[in-house]
Amino acid sequence: MAEFDLVVRNGEVATGYGLARCDIGVKDGRIVALAERIAGGERVLDAGGRLVLPGGVDSHCHIAQPEPAGFVHEESFVTASRSAFAGGTTSVVCFIPQFKGGGVWEQFTAYRAAASEAMADYAFHQIVTDPRPEILERELPAVIAEGVRSLKVFLTYDPLHLTDAQYLAVLALARREGCLVTVHCENHDAIRWRIAALKAAGLTAPKYHAWARPPVVEREATHRAIALAELVDQPIQVFHVSCAEAAEEIARARARGVKVWGETCPQYLVLTAADMDRPGFEGAKFMCSPSPRSVEEQGRVWQMIRQGVLDVVSSDHCGFSYGTPDGKRMNGEDDFSVVPNGIPGLGSRLPILFSEGVSKGRITVEEFVRLSAANPANLMGLAPRKGRIAVGADADLVLWDAERRVTITNALLQHAIDYTPYEGLEVTGWPVCTIRRGEVVMQDGRVQAAPGSGRYLPRGRYALVAPRGVVPDGFDAARL
Amino acid sequence: MAEFDLVVRNGEVATGYGLARCDIGVKDGRIVALAERIAGGERVLDAGGRLVLPGGVDSHCHIAQPEPAGFVHEESFVTASRSAFAGGTTSVVCFIPQFKGGGVWEQFTAYRAAASEAMADYAFHQIVTDPRPEILERELPAVIAEGVRSLKVFLTYDPLHLTDAQYLAVLALARREGCLVTVHCENHDAIRWRIAALKAAGLTAPKYHAWARPPVVEREATHRAIALAELVDQPIQVFHVSCAEAAEEIARARARGVKVWGETCPQYLVLTAADMDRPGFEGAKFMCSPSPRSVEEQGRVWQMIRQGVLDVVSSDHCGFSYGTPDGKRMNGEDDFSVVPNGIPGLGSRLPILFSEGVSKGRITVEEFVRLSAANPANLMGLAPRKGRIAVGADADLVLWDAERRVTITNALLQHAIDYTPYEGLEVTGWPVCTIRRGEVVMQDGRVQAAPGSGRYLPRGRYALVAPRGVVPDGFDAARL
Amino acid sequence: MAEFDLVVRNGEVATGYGLARCDIGVKDGRIVALAERIAGGERVLDAGGRLVLPGGVDSHCHIAQPEPAGFVHEESFVTASRSAFAGGTTSVVCFIPQFKGGGVWEQFTAYRAAASEAMADYAFHQIVTDPRPEILERELPAVIAEGVRSLKVFLTYDPLHLTDAQYLAVLALARREGCLVTVHCENHDAIRWRIAALKAAGLTAPKYHAWARPPVVEREATHRAIALAELVDQPIQVFHVSCAEAAEEIARARARGVKVWGETCPQYLVLTAADMDRPGFEGAKFMCSPSPRSVEEQGRVWQMIRQGVLDVVSSDHCGFSYGTPDGKRMNGEDDFSVVPNGIPGLGSRLPILFSEGVSKGRITVEEFVRLSAANPANLMGLAPRKGRIAVGADADLVLWDAERRVTITNALLQHAIDYTPYEGLEVTGWPVCTIRRGEVVMQDGRVQAAPGSGRYLPRGRYALVAPRGVVPDGFDAARL
Amino acid sequence: MAEFDLVVRNGEVATGYGLARCDIGVKDGRIVALAERIAGGERVLDAGGRLVLPGGVDSHCHIAQPEPAGFVHEESFVTASRSAFAGGTTSVVCFIPQFKGGGVWEQFTAYRAAASEAMADYAFHQIVTDPRPEILERELPAVIAEGVRSLKVFLTYDPLHLTDAQYLAVLALARREGCLVTVHCENHDAIRWRIAALKAAGLTAPKYHAWARPPVVEREATHRAIALAELVDQPIQVFHVSCAEAAEEIARARARGVKVWGETCPQYLVLTAADMDRPGFEGAKFMCSPSPRSVEEQGRVWQMIRQGVLDVVSSDHCGFSYGTPDGKRMNGEDDFSVVPNGIPGLGSRLPILFSEGVSKGRITVEEFVRLSAANPANLMGLAPRKGRIAVGADADLVLWDAERRVTITNALLQHAIDYTPYEGLEVTGWPVCTIRRGEVVMQDGRVQAAPGSGRYLPRGRYALVAPRGVVPDGFDAARL
Repeated sequence: MAEFDLVVRNGEVATGYGLARCDIGVKDGRIVALAERIAGGERVLDAGGRLVLPGGVDSHCHIAQPEPAGFVHEESFVTASRSAFAGGTTSVVCFIPQFKGGGVWEQFTAYRAAASEAMADYAFHQIVTDPRPEILERELPAVIAEGVRSLKVFLTYDPLHLTDAQYLAVLALARREGCLVTVHCENHDAIRWRIAALKAAGLTAPKYHAWARPPVVEREATHRAIALAELVDQPIQVFHVSCAEAAEEIARARARGVKVWGETCPQYLVLTAADMDRPGFEGAKFMCSPSPRSVEEQGRVWQMIRQGVLDVVSSDHCGFSYGTPDGKRMNGEDDFSVVPNGIPGLGSRLPILFSEGVSKGRITVEEFVRLSAANPANLMGLAPRKGRIAVGADADLVLWDAERRVTITNALLQHAIDYTPYEGLEVTGWPVCTIRRGEVVMQDGRVQAAPGSGRYLPRGRYALVAPRGVVPDGFDAARL
Repeated sequence: MAEFDLVVRNGEVATGYGLARCDIGVKDGRIVALAERIAGGERVLDAGGRLVLPGGVDSHCHIAQPEPAGFVHEESFVTASRSAFAGGTTSVVCFIPQFKGGGVWEQFTAYRAAASEAMADYAFHQIVTDPRPEILERELPAVIAEGVRSLKVFLTYDPLHLTDAQYLAVLALARREGCLVTVHCENHDAIRWRIAALKAAGLTAPKYHAWARPPVVEREATHRAIALAELVDQPIQVFHVSCAEAAEEIARARARGVKVWGETCPQYLVLTAADMDRPGFEGAKFMCSPSPRSVEEQGRVWQMIRQGVLDVVSSDHCGFSYGTPDGKRMNGEDDFSVVPNGIPGLGSRLPILFSEGVSKGRITVEEFVRLSAANPANLMGLAPRKGRIAVGADADLVLWDAERRVTITNALLQHAIDYTPYEGLEVTGWPVCTIRRGEVVMQDGRVQAAPGSGRYLPRGRYALVAPRGVVPDGFDAARL
Repeated sequence: MAEFDLVVRNGEVATGYGLARCDIGVKDGRIVALAERIAGGERVLDAGGRLVLPGGVDSHCHIAQPEPAGFVHEESFVTASRSAFAGGTTSVVCFIPQFKGGGVWEQFTAYRAAASEAMADYAFHQIVTDPRPEILERELPAVIAEGVRSLKVFLTYDPLHLTDAQYLAVLALARREGCLVTVHCENHDAIRWRIAALKAAGLTAPKYHAWARPPVVEREATHRAIALAELVDQPIQVFHVSCAEAAEEIARARARGVKVWGETCPQYLVLTAADMDRPGFEGAKFMCSPSPRSVEEQGRVWQMIRQGVLDVVSSDHCGFSYGTPDGKRMNGEDDFSVVPNGIPGLGSRLPILFSEGVSKGRITVEEFVRLSAANPANLMGLAPRKGRIAVGADADLVLWDAERRVTITNALLQHAIDYTPYEGLEVTGWPVCTIRRGEVVMQDGRVQAAPGSGRYLPRGRYALVAPRGVVPDGFDAARL
Repeated sequence: MAEFDLVVRNGEVATGYGLARCDIGVKDGRIVALAERIAGGERVLDAGGRLVLPGGVDSHCHIAQPEPAGFVHEESFVTASRSAFAGGTTSVVCFIPQFKGGGVWEQFTAYRAAASEAMADYAFHQIVTDPRPEILERELPAVIAEGVRSLKVFLTYDPLHLTDAQYLAVLALARREGCLVTVHCENHDAIRWRIAALKAAGLTAPKYHAWARPPVVEREATHRAIALAELVDQPIQVFHVSCAEAAEEIARARARGVKVWGETCPQYLVLTAADMDRPGFEGAKFMCSPSPRSVEEQGRVWQMIRQGVLDVVSSDHCGFSYGTPDGKRMNGEDDFSVVPNGIPGLGSRLPILFSEGVSKGRITVEEFVRLSAANPANLMGLAPRKGRIAVGADADLVLWDAERRVTITNALLQHAIDYTPYEGLEVTGWPVCTIRRGEVVMQDGRVQAAPGSGRYLPRGRYALVAPRGVVPDGFDAARL
């Protein structure tokens, strides 16, 4: 019997302290040895001097998520897993819905069943839209006990958003239960007010999506989300920060010792509001919330990444096709205010971040790994299993050709959606082989994995991301 | 022939992504394997579940450094190595002097010869006090070519300080040669003005050392050092930051994209100006520059560490004894302005940082490792050999008992100096075994290493510390 | 017929550019001449070298204000005028209520009738609690047309507070009509959440009022109020700023070019939260919202005054007696959460501000005049009639003895309320004579004025306070 | 005998609290009455509803100033007074030189004699370039006693600049004597380093002036000037702030309670570095230090004016002609580094500030008056005589036609210099009549005043500018 099921030879391995040239020995799906030279191995892969990185952890993906009346995520866990593997991602964190008036336990069980066909490993956030007493006291603790250790709340969107009182109730529950709270920060009433004004003026083309939600609307909600979390002393992560003024609120709060983290997404690094100003309905392809901003703002977001204020880059993947009655064209209407928000990005996340970040000299490979795998795994309580190449961790690996130049096309991304907002974007750096728990699941673009081979990842309490140094004195999340 | 010269078993190993339980295999002084279980080994050490950390890298030590007329560093490379090993440090970066009117090549060769008796591994900064054309054009490039890749300048101290013009000349040279510049930031004239006023008023007790150099004096020079480096586009490290207002200048500069790093020292985390206000001359034991500040300021310095603004903790070790004619009492005078500045700290650095940081919950073990080993090694161009536990790195390790409570005494520190400013300080966490390139050089306080067994570390170009993410767009240190 | 009805001789007159020694000639209630020497005069008052200041303008007083069910302002316009004159104030801006479901026009006419007995001149803010379409479209424009050119909104208090959507509607209306909006900034849900937690824990003594509304609650609402005003491009004044962190939001917004002003009150300069921690129910005497903070915070509020961030000091006078069933002891309950918020302060405002500000060297006389008269008059659109000593202005004057030392007692303040929170406070500087439109209405503490002699002040569009220089490029309040 | 020598009727008079329609009565050169209607008057001027403003106070003019070897201010006190009156300015503060090795008393007496031909009133700053003990101890106190209550120091320029030690000595003297210190803030060595590099590269055209002194050079010296003043607790004014990053240092210092004021000049509001990039030597016409920046920077400087950080706008008038051997073309050389720095601006200061500020809606008339007359008079200790329209003040008045559109030409400015950098600039608003101490000295562009009719203004201790509110607690300038 071979000592190792798989040996990856001759890689430039991302070890957490920069790159090291070594071999990786895998047994039973886990990394059991890192060494200068590992002989033997049931199967041997020669990395040929290429980068060997931890498989990506995408901590913000909407996959096959039941939605209230009308719109539909067209991606299944199978198609999403395929796209994840194609793009070098091996773990995803998706969202269990709650509908107003409805429960969460029933949704958890249904969603977990739906996810069982996944090939990527998966964990869940629990969306909370209706924190009634029985939800807070019975159902959420039950779901959390199953390893769903983050609660997602929306401060905007009509059937989803919480009042401040409801948000406070969720924060307090999360504190008692040791959960993270993740927040979509935009001011609901302000957006509604803007939309009404735009519609009254007959301005309904896709580009007005950006007009309806300017940065001030995001900054307001970000400050409020932080202030209330500060009051409760409950850690939060601000999702999809699109602009410096919102990120600045996170930076200021950290300097006060508040436990707040910030996430951004590739759309805020390469798209702009001008992309929505294309002829006809085409602009809807770029419609997500918050809105993409400007080229100058992209530069400021990079600065915030480099300062460590934004320390996770996720995809916020959404499965709305462009040309379908279930997708962006839901009702056949062109009015921006009824178009589903969200864009596909699971497969393109890592190549875009690598190309814009590492290849263009903005970040190092080590920083890339932290932003895309280590930090989300740590913050989501998936470490030490996920997000790192270390003895004992799951053997989730991606062999990365740092020199390969690729023009992104929708076909390359292998998702079920009929478009990518990044069509035609040239990137330098591409994943050539993806390994999930020791099994090669993608080689040169060919995905090969059995539906259902993905595993549910019950999560522990979140771990504070150490290198950013934001663990305050005497922090005790269970104190309240 | 055994595959491994040494195997360290059952450690909680600091891997750069947090701790992993694994064994470490060492061959020819380097780490060649990390694995769940490593059989064999010429010698086997059982860590018994204790932390296994990279040997400390102290990037700021004055050891056996020739000084201009009068005062003398009493520590030899042998005694300093002993203290380093006792405290878990395996590599030191010391200072080659330059005297006004004198050269640097002659000093380099003399100092390198003196250092050859060291047991710790060693690298050098080159102090520049007289950047005459022939020094800039010929001698410094020659020394740099020997692997001395950082130039240290002083903005204060009488025989040492540079004018702005001289500092600019050093920055420009460093840029051409790919060196880091490290800077002692205090305003020379302001301190002289204050000292004159204090002496005129008959205020010469040790405690007036703090009055002579308040934080504004440090902030001024810090801002100036940064501004001129910004003009030249040359990376610098600000040494021994003692207060938030100086650190704030670093933070502001980083937000502008300036390549500046900040170091602090244990004296700014546990000592205060009040320590100098002891009866008689006793206060001289705590006299270093910048001056220790207040308890409140210590808290603010910790905040700056946690925000990543200060990312190296060194000792600024100085070998001046208290009661000797060559030490603090140099001329038998009690006048604070003639007492040599500097305190011993090589052996106590890691225990104090661990105890105040990790044991008191301010930082994680991973952060401790970065502050005390990984970051200084990266910034000083000693990586990937030093500062990390990774395949291929030197097998510099320290077994750390995180629970052991120790009261610091001078004897425990094993240096040649007759006191420690930390006498009586209680710490939690202590190094129980130090390994240098695979050789056990300290076990339970007993140092065992042959004089001369340390190696000179010629350094490469500095590496920018990746996790802080401060590599600006299009950085090209050789551009000017 | 004398050329002047009144001549005030030999004053050190506050002219807007510092003090000038001159005489003031008054005719028909207005200042018609300022000169080195004015002969004649029907009546002559010799100021004897004392300060002659503009009569105070208190732009934030609750007087005889109808309240929803239960609690009662015990001050009438007569008693409030008496207290105003006793303290050197000649103009007040009070509040017309709106009750949920009710209108504003009816309230305006009723309140104007009630005010007709005043001796002080008076203007109104219109409180908006229920901005229904007919209120926004018909009633508010009608009231505004009567010279009520500011709308007051509450972001907390149960029957009063607005949602963000309602607040946006008020901002948009104000922009169309050229009104100022004044805002009580505290987060409603957060306070309710805190109160519930305190009550659940049985913590209901007066001192818990401060616990229920910490600074973060005020900062949150301040930032939100500003952000939404920024979205609408509508000028606002943030009322009663109690702490630096809220003021800091104003300062940041101004630096962005936002038209926002900040007011503070004497209670935030001399009271603290500790005042509420007195035996029994006594602490209720100091209960107002936001809560008084700490001595350190008082210092920071002064800094914000000196930087011009807070440029109006009003009283926020409230007419709740301490020992009456209609006052603080409304229901005979000791529970802090049911005690009416607000303290009397109309008569004590100027002496406290002068003593703490001018006599203690924190501000100049000119700054005192701006904070207490000129700035509120300018911002409220009462200039050039009110708030200044200038030819053409109303002859509202106060002769001020800058040296007189007085211990404040309730009797001195001459209001209808049975206590003052400032009982026993020693002040230096006291008003010795108050003149309203050329008529001596207070001399040495004796108030002499006919009920109904006060005049309603229909206001023009607000004027932006010039010396602060915050008139942004291309400002057009009617643009939207 | 008429009661008034002059009566100005029907003006919109700037009174310090905004405009008031009134008449002004003048007797013996002073304002003795402001009244709705003043009958009689030896001479009567009808303002016809035009603005009546205080005569401008230009607190920063180089007039007939002896210079070290080589370059020459071509303006005499007669020609400068003519230009001042033409542009609405009635008082100037000029500079007594000191040459290295030379004294100050001799320069004071000589310069005062030279100034005796002036028609404008005048006061002096004393430049200090060589603070030797006898200068500090004897000569400067003697000059200060003559009413020269500000010391000007340069942190750059070769024969002028002070070391930090010398600057500290001047600060300490000023503190003892109750003087203001005004500072030219640019880093000397950095500029020399840049100039050497530019010359080495053959880049000597006028436009490289801007390259030689980028904003960082100004920010550095500004921070240093403030920090050292902070150490000494001595008030300073930073001269000619050209960019937001320098102004930001002033704002930060004020927030710490430091007594620092900032001045800017019209050149930083309407010129840019691009103006120096004209064919041939033409760019030299715009060469002053600090250098004009960019259009964006102009906007940021306006923001700093509006926030009160920069509260004086002076001309920094310099009398170097363009085409003369004594002027810009001093040695017939085109090399930017030998061209005298400085541009004429005495006559154009007020029209440019009014037009860009008031006419374009950036500031109010009251703010204009403060920036150009009241604030400089207050800060320079010329109040209450100068800078205001108030009873008792000198009758220095300017009748201003706010609607008149004028294209600036050199002839209109009536100075001795052969060009204006503002040639062709269109302005709205122009002075139509200037009155100095009750005497009409300019009417419709015709200057009529006897040489020698100007008076020397011995100054009192500086007054802190009240409306900015920056008088710190317990300020005592004589404490040290």
